[in-house]
Amino acid sequence: MNNTSSLVIGFDGDDTLWHNEQLFADTQDQLRELLGHYADIASIDSKLLEIERRNLAIFGYGVKGFVLSMIETAIEISSSTVSAHDIHQIVMMGKALLEHPIELLDGVSDVVNELSGRHRLILVTKGDLLHQESKVAASGLADLFWRVEIVSEKDPPTYRRLLDRHAVAPIDFVMIGNSVASDVLPVLAIGGRAVHVPYHITWALEVAAAGNDDFPTLSDLRDVVPLVEQWAS
Amino acid sequence: MNNTSSLVIGFDGDDTLWHNEQLFADTQDQLRELLGHYADIASIDSKLLEIERRNLAIFGYGVKGFVLSMIETAIEISSSTVSAHDIHQIVMMGKALLEHPIELLDGVSDVVNELSGRHRLILVTKGDLLHQESKVAASGLADLFWRVEIVSEKDPPTYRRLLDRHAVAPIDFVMIGNSVASDVLPVLAIGGRAVHVPYHITWALEVAAAGNDDFPTLSDLRDVVPLVEQWAS
Repeated sequence: MNNTSSLVIGFDGDDTLWHNEQLFADTQDQLRELLGHYADIASIDSKLLEIERRNLAIFGYGVKGFVLSMIETAIEISSSTVSAHDIHQIVMMGKALLEHPIELLDGVSDVVNELSGRHRLILVTKGDLLHQESKVAASGLADLFWRVEIVSEKDPPTYRRLLDRHAVAPIDFVMIGNSVASDVLPVLAIGGRAVHVPYHITWALEVAAAGNDDFPTLSDLRDVVPLVEQWAS
Repeated sequence: MNNTSSLVIGFDGDDTLWHNEQLFADTQDQLRELLGHYADIASIDSKLLEIERRNLAIFGYGVKGFVLSMIETAIEISSSTVSAHDIHQIVMMGKALLEHPIELLDGVSDVVNELSGRHRLILVTKGDLLHQESKVAASGLADLFWRVEIVSEKDPPTYRRLLDRHAVAPIDFVMIGNSVASDVLPVLAIGGRAVHVPYHITWALEVAAAGNDDFPTLSDLRDVVPLVEQWAS
């Protein structure tokens, strides 16, 4: 890497570099099918969301907590009549999620390769530590990143600590991600810049409240390159 | 902190600074009781260990993976007849583990306070990211550490990467911990120094193979202070 810019570009991982939420949604479809004789789809979905929200502070983000929340959902929605066999199915669905191959989103490889030649790149991702490390390794992109940071929450203090640690001024930091709540607003709050590149679905617990929308939204990650070059000049 | 030494002291967290394995052992006792009408204690223990070993590469360390392994144990040992109520008990046992207050080991507060006045301290711990962060915060020791590193595995490459990242030469690094396999041998392997301070129980998957024992073992953490001062001089 020949770094000719003072800009540091942060990339989110899940749903920015590789598919993630779609895999969770597919797993949730399987849960609906498994529990379909206890309740309708809307009840299953709202129970799962209620339990995920309740568990977030104790389990954090990631597949293992999701599996435990699915198990609790199955128990509650069945009034404790769900079979051990069905619970086992849920554990197996979780393992399949953890072992699912990484599929990069369109354009990711080109964009990361191109930007890494001119800027320092930081991957900032949240979720289960081992799983995120495995995904970074499997992405084939790890060597293009200057730093990889796996965090438990993406809030302003986390971003501030992370930039301090790597001696990066907020004004030199550009974060790129699919979540307005996690990748955009907290970075703007500490004086950095951010670009929103939406994924086709957003987890309910990642939906940002309406408010500040003073940031660029790009539908194609490839359009990040000219924008960053404009900011770098 | 007025750092007058070039030594950097690494501390393990679980079972070095605060109680951990005892809480897992107490939880395993509850599992034995819960599953006592399906199998004897030895069968439950060996099934759990077999499943934990099988799951380690995919779940990593920490409570959430332990809970999922306990659930799988309950299902397998009961030939899929375990009730949803009992599975729910296991989930609740996991939550209790995650929410258990931190209890520092004897002497920890004094030793960490004393060493932090003269050396840079790094906490190096593995497990669930959010849970480990919560434990560090609850320990009241966070401000005494120069750096906190939560890692997915404690092997030589991890220690090498960690020291590189903080520009610490291996010869200046002293790791203190209860696990020969995780805290001592990998640090010796990269040219650092290590002190073994055993906890009264060791998880079966942390038991080191016999071999290199060319390192000090101290039964009282307080004895670390004079040893470090001798190495620092």
